[in-house]
This record gives sequence, C-alpha cells and structure tokens, in this order.
Amino acid sequence: MTQTQGVQILLKSIKESPLYKIANPESIAFFGASNNFMSMGTQMLDSVKLLGFEGAVYPIHPKEENVLGFKAYPGITDLPEIPDLAVIVLPTKIVSRIIEECGKKGIRQAIVVSGGFKEVGGHGIDLQAELKQTAARHGIRLLGPNCLGVANVHHRFNPTPIPCDCAPGFVGLASQSGSFVTQIFNYLQLHGMGFSTAFSVGNELNIDMVDCLEYLGTCPNTKVIALYIEGLRRGREFVKTARSIVPHKPIVALYVGGSESGRNAAFSHTGAMAGPDRLYDGILKQSGIIRAASLTELFDFCWALGSQPRPKGPGVVIQTHSGGPGATAADSCGRAGLEIPRLSPETVTKLRPFVPHTASINNPIDLTFNKNMNDFYWDIPKLLLEDENTDMLLLYFLAPPVFIERFLTGTGASSEQAVKDARKIIDDQAATFIRLADNFDKPILGYTYRSLQEPFVRKMLDHGIPVYPDPARAARAMGALRQYALLREKAMAG
Amino acid sequence: MTQTQGVQILLKSIKESPLYKIANPESIAFFGASNNFMSMGTQMLDSVKLLGFEGAVYPIHPKEENVLGFKAYPGITDLPEIPDLAVIVLPTKIVSRIIEECGKKGIRQAIVVSGGFKEVGGHGIDLQAELKQTAARHGIRLLGPNCLGVANVHHRFNPTPIPCDCAPGFVGLASQSGSFVTQIFNYLQLHGMGFSTAFSVGNELNIDMVDCLEYLGTCPNTKVIALYIEGLRRGREFVKTARSIVPHKPIVALYVGGSESGRNAAFSHTGAMAGPDRLYDGILKQSGIIRAASLTELFDFCWALGSQPRPKGPGVVIQTHSGGPGATAADSCGRAGLEIPRLSPETVTKLRPFVPHTASINNPIDLTFNKNMNDFYWDIPKLLLEDENTDMLLLYFLAPPVFIERFLTGTGASSEQAVKDARKIIDDQAATFIRLADNFDKPILGYTYRSLQEPFVRKMLDHGIPVYPDPARAARAMGALRQYALLREKAMAG
Repeated sequence: MTQTQGVQILLKSIKESPLYKIANPESIAFFGASNNFMSMGTQMLDSVKLLGFEGAVYPIHPKEENVLGFKAYPGITDLPEIPDLAVIVLPTKIVSRIIEECGKKGIRQAIVVSGGFKEVGGHGIDLQAELKQTAARHGIRLLGPNCLGVANVHHRFNPTPIPCDCAPGFVGLASQSGSFVTQIFNYLQLHGMGFSTAFSVGNELNIDMVDCLEYLGTCPNTKVIALYIEGLRRGREFVKTARSIVPHKPIVALYVGGSESGRNAAFSHTGAMAGPDRLYDGILKQSGIIRAASLTELFDFCWALGSQPRPKGPGVVIQTHSGGPGATAADSCGRAGLEIPRLSPETVTKLRPFVPHTASINNPIDLTFNKNMNDFYWDIPKLLLEDENTDMLLLYFLAPPVFIERFLTGTGASSEQAVKDARKIIDDQAATFIRLADNFDKPILGYTYRSLQEPFVRKMLDHGIPVYPDPARAARAMGALRQYALLREKAMAG
Repeated sequence: MTQTQGVQILLKSIKESPLYKIANPESIAFFGASNNFMSMGTQMLDSVKLLGFEGAVYPIHPKEENVLGFKAYPGITDLPEIPDLAVIVLPTKIVSRIIEECGKKGIRQAIVVSGGFKEVGGHGIDLQAELKQTAARHGIRLLGPNCLGVANVHHRFNPTPIPCDCAPGFVGLASQSGSFVTQIFNYLQLHGMGFSTAFSVGNELNIDMVDCLEYLGTCPNTKVIALYIEGLRRGREFVKTARSIVPHKPIVALYVGGSESGRNAAFSHTGAMAGPDRLYDGILKQSGIIRAASLTELFDFCWALGSQPRPKGPGVVIQTHSGGPGATAADSCGRAGLEIPRLSPETVTKLRPFVPHTASINNPIDLTFNKNMNDFYWDIPKLLLEDENTDMLLLYFLAPPVFIERFLTGTGASSEQAVKDARKIIDDQAATFIRLADNFDKPILGYTYRSLQEPFVRKMLDHGIPVYPDPARAARAMGALRQYALLREKAMAG
C-alpha cells in the first residue's frame, strides 16, 4: 500500500498504536483461568492454546501449579519477566486492584473481559471511573472492560471464548459487540474468508473505535475494514481517521441504533431510530465509509472488496447456462445500480463457435448447455473478460459432482472410481478457471444455489474468488466495489 | 383446509386439473432416453429411476431393447397399455409428429422438454402453432414446450435432468424458469424444506401459470405456493385464481422483469424495468400475493409461511445470549415493520430466577450466558411464549458441539467419548425445545451465524422450525407471516 500525495495514514508505524502489543504480544499474563472448564477464563485460555500461540503464557492462579498445561504463578510479581499484555477475566470488584498490581510490575497493556462496569449503571459507573484512574496512573492502555478482546489470527493469538476455526485472512474488524468477533469465525471459514485482526472494544475505557480504525488502517494484513457500530464517542476523529484510510483501503460499516433503545425496550420499529439513523448515515457518508444493511451484507461487501480489484465502471457481464438464474442476476444488478452492457460485435462474433445455436449471446450470456465443459471455464469467460465493455464478470456456477459421477457410472465406471474421477475432472476445471481469472485485473464473482462447500465452489473460495449463495448478494457486493472505486476517486481528489 | 363462506377454490377436486396426471402418472412413455449419458433425455429418465418412481416406465427407442434397465419399445403403438403421460425430449422438428402418434394411442397428457419453438422466433413460431393444433386435435394437454416439466416429490416422480435430493415437502412451485425447479432441490434440502410439486411451464402452449396455481391451490401437500414470474398471459384469471386461494394458503412471488429486456440486452438497470415492474407490483397486490425481492427471499418466506402458524400481531420477542446479535435482530425487525414489545411485569418477575444478574430482561432478552443450559431451551422461552405481548418468538442459536466437547475433554473424557456425549446432550436439548415449541400456537423462528448443518440447528430444521443464517432474513420472513395474516383477514372479509 503506497502513500499517496495529500493523503496520510495517521500512524507512521503500526507499532505506535496502543493496540500493537495487545494484538501482537510476545508474552501474556492470564488472570481468571483454571482447570475448570465451566469458567469463561479457562475457555479463553484454552482458545489461546488451541490456536497454537507461540509467545510465553503465564497463568496467574492462587493455588494451581499448572493451568491447562502452562506453569502457573501465584501472583504477578512472581513472573520471570514483564509480559507484554495482561488478560483479566476476574470478578468486577477486584479488577482495579489487579490493574494496579500489573502497573507496578511494569505491564502497560491489558484486556479487561470482566463486565459489571458502566454498562450496568449505578455502582458500576464508579467502578469504571476508579479503573480509569488506576490505568491512567500507570500509563496502561486497555481494551474493555466488558469485551471479548482481540483475535489476531496471523499472530495465532485468540484469547476469546470460542476456538478460532478460520484461517488468517484479510478482514480487519472493530466491533462494539464481542459476539461478532468470536461467533463469526465459523461463518468466515464457510465463505473462504478470515480475520486479519478483530477487536471487541467493550466499554472503550481508554481505547476506542478510532484507535482500532487507526490500527487496522495501518495493518499490512488488513485489506478491508469492517465496523460494527452501536454508537460513536469521538465523531470528529472518527471521520478524520476514516477519510485518511479510504484512499488506501475500503471501510464497510454496519450501524445498528441498537444499544440504548434496545435496552430501554422502547426499540419498537424504525420510527424510534430515525433520528440517530440519519445522523449516522451522514457521518458514514462524510467518512467515505460504505454502509451495510445487515451483518451478512457487511461481510459480503468485505469479501468482494478484500479480494477483487477496483472496477473501471458499472458494467456487469453475466455468464450462465440457465435462463432463470441469468434473468434473476440481471434484475439484481439493475436494483444494485449496476449496468448490463451490450457486448461488442467483435466479441459476439468470436463467441459464436463456442456456444450452441439455442444460446443467447446477448448479456446475460445464456449458454443453455455446454458444448464443451472446458469452454465454459476458459474460452468463453476469456472473451467476455477481454471485451472493453466488461467492467466486472459474474458467473453462475452449477457443478455438482453428481452430474459427472452419473455420466461416469453410466458409461461403466464403478461408483468409487466415478467419485474419484469426477473429483479429478472438477479440480482440473477449477484450476483452468483460476488460471484464467489470475490474468485479468477485473472483478470476477460467482453465484450458486448449491452448497458453498461443493468441491468446485470451494476451490474458488480458497483461491479468493467469492461465490455468493444468491445473485442478489453478489450484485450488491459488486455495487459496493463500484461504490468504493468512486469514493476512493473522490477521496484522492481532495 | 376448510371451505370458507364466500370463498371458493376453483377446482372441486385436484383430479379435474389438466396437471393431475402430469404430476401423478401411474405410467409414462419416455421419448428421447437411451443408454448414452451424454443425452439430456437419458439423464432425465435416470432421475426418474433414482427417485424410485413406482409407476410403469416405457422408454420408446428405435433400437435398444433395454434403456437404463427398463424394457424399451420401438414405438408408442407397441405399448401394452395407454400410459397416463408422455415425456418427450426429441429434436424440435419431430415433436409434433410424436404428439400425433401419442394422440392416436389415446394418451391425453404430455411434457414437451424440447426447445426450439416460439422462444427462438422465426420458424420456431410456426412449429409451435403446428404443435398446438396437433395437441388440440387429440385433446392433449401438455406442459411446455421448452420446459423441464414437473417434480412431484411425494409421488417420487422427478423426470428432470437433476437428481432430487430434497425430501417431500410443503412448497408448491410454478416457475417460468426450469432452473428453479431442478437447481433448487439441494438448496431446499440444506434448509430443511422440500417441494410438494414443482412445475416448469416453459412456453405455456396450453397449460399456463394459472393452471399451476389452481393445481397447487387444491393440492393437499402444498402449504405455501411459490411463483417465479417473468411475464403473465392471463392476467385477469391469474388474479381471480390467486384471490380464491389466499384465504386457504399463502402465495409468494418473485417477479423478474427479465426475459424480454434481458434478451434484448437492453436490460441496463432499474429504469428500463420501472414500467412493467410497477404494473406487476399492482397485479400481485390485487391478488393478495406476497412479493419477494430475490430467490432467497422467495424461499425464506415460504419456509416460515409453510411451517409456522399465523401471528396474532406484529410483536416479536427476541431471546439471545449475546448483545450484538440481539441488537442486530431488533434493528432488523424494526426495518421489517415489526414491533419489539415490552414484556409484562409478571413475565419479568417470573424470569428473574432463571437469568444472571448481568442479563437484560427487557426485549431483546439478553441472557449474556446460560446459568443452566436447559433453562435456555425450556423455562425461559416458555415464559416468553406465555406472555400475551409475544406474537412471535425469535431465538439466537449458538450451540456448536465444540463448546460441550471442550468442556467434556477438559473434565477428563476422551475425545471420542466427548464427541459422543456432546452429541447426546445436544440431541436432548433440541428435543426439549421441540417439545416446548409444539405446545404453542405462535410462530417460533431461529437465527445463527454458524452452519445450518450443525446438529442442534439441523434438528430444528428437520422438525420444521426455520433457522435463518441471518436475523435480517428471519425478520423479513416474520414480516411476511404478519403480512399474510393481514392479507388473509382482508380476503376473508370480502
């Protein structure tokens, strides 16, 4: 990511961020884990272990000599070194004292998972004020309280209650809900995505959404930033930071007017949210941030934005071998503000030998069936991608192994052999298409109505070609690609 | 389904429908299948065989003695009986002659899969006119041409190119795209749904969407009707038929202004479709039909409408153990025009012993964590369902086996034992919740961000409790439930 004239990322180095050692510790002290798996602290330390964290782990426990296989220490003063980070999962009332002890030991970063502070009101507000003072006294920057902390998949560091089953990826997340850090690992894995680093900010005592944005804007593993927002504290800094990032990488946000209204059970419907919703809509627009309407859309947009190049225009060419899926996709593209251009006469001429006479060579290109399967994955999409009217290519994929298996058993193969051979054929077709896709600097997306885990589609996902389970979702994601290209142009212009 | 005063289903018996013997044949003649699996006809007959069709199958083949294990006959005159139905997958130019022969044999129903008729223009228009005359001469009613015919899963009858891997279900489909009959089997299976009967109407020679609507409106296996519409021929009859069905069962439609515009590549975006789109919007409204915005939404709506009772009002109570998913769901409900009512003071009092002190007992009910897992699946939802303010219940499900397995291995179980025991625990929890749900006449829906194939959620799906992979989809489906309740009231009133 190169610096562009007139645009500055706020941090000169990611190491300046208060989040750097929180997300990339070499050593951690862990308060609140034991060998009892009913406790949340234990589950969190177990997640650290399961992902194979390579740094030093020091569980602090008054009685145990060993916690989950790690040598335990009775107190923070007993540690052989000053750890980069303290993770605290303890009863609310002793958190401040533990932060005091950490400060004295020389620790300068913490994650406070414990709740019961400002979010419960009453005495919790006092406890949070006390915690803030204690942290300030020792220059401690902490994530939380009342959060699930961080998951830095590239650093193999996941001190959250849920085991991480997604591979390291390109989506950076800052979330005002811990659930969307941990409960989304599996979702990302199913879609061939993964987190670079995900932050749960909790009550934002002295690290907030703006700090996360700065970190993720600078983080080299993060190609796209996802935000889950229930309410912002530093509006002006948020806008300024976002605007400095947008020329370098896209930001997508889901704003839910949730928290307060939800808690007061006065949420009822949109009426109640109209005010703040419009306000936040304005803030996001001013920031150059793309707004998603649901969590699905948040990650759908990230999927395309983090994996695909910027389109040069709004023109989508659709390749299908079925009329209904083609018409539905064209309709969805229209609704997403995209265009379905005509192909150039040269392209139409070149396509003719490859398509059956029943096919439509207009856009959508409906092949009705494949004369030759390999044409579908090489010659035809190649001609479409070469057409200057094609800004983006959208393909309908229908490649269940059962089609090929049936053909093979029908011509005499045993079931086992057919399964094996079909898999080989599908792998070859996928490899062919991937080789083609790698040669073009245009967005290429797919859609299917079958499971994303079928072998052809899974190969696409694993190679970074998004395949949506619905053309409407693919169309809106292409809309986001186009929107980012325009937002970036605007941001670069000044 | 009882007849209601002032409202009549158009058919007295489903057997009056021209589609009855097409969807429920006792015997079929099949033209165009061989033992060569490259041919579409062969694939179609193979699908019939795979689903275990119990009627008589007579392949017609000039040379083969045996086709896919069925005794073959050289011509239609050689058959030992008059079959209920002829399925024809032959070159365009001989279709009319074959229909003539079928007519002479006494066959009165056909499916013509072959394309190359009106849809290709030119000489195809003449061929279709000739086919129409031939059919009329013999009183033959036929589905198609240029269609994929029918799939009646209850009758184990699937003469389409794709093997049916969904169980018999409650969704009746009439589609102007064959893809959405065949290419959606797997999609439905993944969501715990299935077709009752699905029709692909093709060029609608002498059976059209209105005939399908009549059939599905009368079909006892069909609890909800899905329509995929690109353009209607008999508008007035369509409206009249739909209006007679709506008091008995809901109808959902996806209209795509696709075909013409798509084929002329003049589709570009919404501008081009504004006219017909508004027109169709009016027709659907007048018919009492719920309009879906995408194929996903079409089947999302059918899922809820076919499995859940009618809600008495717009009030949704949300049970979650995570704040973010709760807020997101509440926000989505608001956007879908639903309400998030307060719980009655009595319910709040009764809930208190079951929830931790950090929980929010407002709506959404955010349990933060479970004091006792079983409370989550019995006592808490029971109290919520008993509250008179609850019209519908929406639950967030997060029950991956790994949680329980980790706990069990942490307390000494072997991995194998943990997997086995975790499965048992999850099955018990699911059975508990299902027992509860069966006692209430209120819609109950779930959502999750994990795979729908994880065991707890799969148990819900298999029992007919829809679990959406996104609260926004669940909310819109509940909006459709509410919309149908209102449309039905209106239809009953006059």
